[in-house]
Amino acid sequence: MSESSLSVRRARARPEERRGRGGDKRERILDAAVRVLAKKGFHSTRVSEVAKAAGVADGTIYLYFKSKDELLVSLFEDRVERLLAFLEADLPRAGSASDKLRRIIELQLGLLEGERDLAEVLTVILRQSTKLMKKYAAPKFNAYLDSIARVVSDGQATGELRGDVSPHLVARAMFGALDGIAMTWALGKADRGGLSRASGQLAQIVLRGLAPLDAR
Amino acid sequence: MSESSLSVRRARARPEERRGRGGDKRERILDAAVRVLAKKGFHSTRVSEVAKAAGVADGTIYLYFKSKDELLVSLFEDRVERLLAFLEADLPRAGSASDKLRRIIELQLGLLEGERDLAEVLTVILRQSTKLMKKYAAPKFNAYLDSIARVVSDGQATGELRGDVSPHLVARAMFGALDGIAMTWALGKADRGGLSRASGQLAQIVLRGLAPLDAR
Repeated sequence: MSESSLSVRRARARPEERRGRGGDKRERILDAAVRVLAKKGFHSTRVSEVAKAAGVADGTIYLYFKSKDELLVSLFEDRVERLLAFLEADLPRAGSASDKLRRIIELQLGLLEGERDLAEVLTVILRQSTKLMKKYAAPKFNAYLDSIARVVSDGQATGELRGDVSPHLVARAMFGALDGIAMTWALGKADRGGLSRASGQLAQIVLRGLAPLDAR
Repeated sequence: MSESSLSVRRARARPEERRGRGGDKRERILDAAVRVLAKKGFHSTRVSEVAKAAGVADGTIYLYFKSKDELLVSLFEDRVERLLAFLEADLPRAGSASDKLRRIIELQLGLLEGERDLAEVLTVILRQSTKLMKKYAAPKFNAYLDSIARVVSDGQATGELRGDVSPHLVARAMFGALDGIAMTWALGKADRGGLSRASGQLAQIVLRGLAPLDAR
């Protein structure tokens, strides 16, 4: 778990580097937005509060994001992109479908371990704007679900996973289970290490539930 | 599935009856609120629009609900209460822990089958108010999670379910999986019968994943 957290942190540095000199300020604004949004919710947050928390002038934010809506969508896309980029780099190295599903579980929860504010923004605040969610978040979200479903159908093709369940159903249920764990963790008392334990137990249940029927 | 849907509908009639003559109007307002909220989202919805959709005067709504916040919380509580009441009445009749978990899965999805607007309100719109969710929705929500966890720990005590996983983790993951399935169903193309198929496959995965280790 600590290895994957470190790796995620390393992967997170990449987008900034690509963006050159402006990246640091953009990243600072996004990090400040996470904190303010978690505290105030989407509709009560003012762009000026994000600017203050980031230590930049109000106008600076509009150099990077056209509106509050765009800030929220960028935050979501940035975080899901990191997750997707990391899965792409990491998954081919994991051998079996089971190993890959275990990594996905560790990563979706590992990304948030120690980041309660981000967990709240991703699981709760994002849904405060149905319109945003339907229009902009859906493509990234679907790409993430597709990558989980692909691991499942590959595992079914080799006979490693049971073939009688829909890969997309598994992806939606797995995402939901992880999201539910993260949400209750974000809204409740977020004990350190709680998400690591949860990811281990969830992996055991999911992998056993997906084992081929003749392995019984 | 059709039997449980029918039963849920029957259970849903009860609160109105208890409430006497005013119940019908209150129920009509809640049903109208579901439709308007799903279309406009929490923050854009005006109480007057709900009144219009329910065919009552604006002031009538305030006889039943003090504010828009209270309307949303009442809607959530009403629906979760129905689910809890139904689980209480129905679960003792289901024999094994596996049967009970299968019923919970069928019920959480069965309640929403054919009710896309309600699915959207419960999975998406409710989270549009973090404050409401933390303060008011949490107790009912926790009662629901507790009742799932109790089924799991009872099953562990009799040796029917594996004992090496936390009952509350299972409850949170199961709720999340169901919520994730309902959310993607509400936001995507909601094909009729899709939730029934999903509930069958999810039950198979969960029950296999929770089988005792020596059953392998």
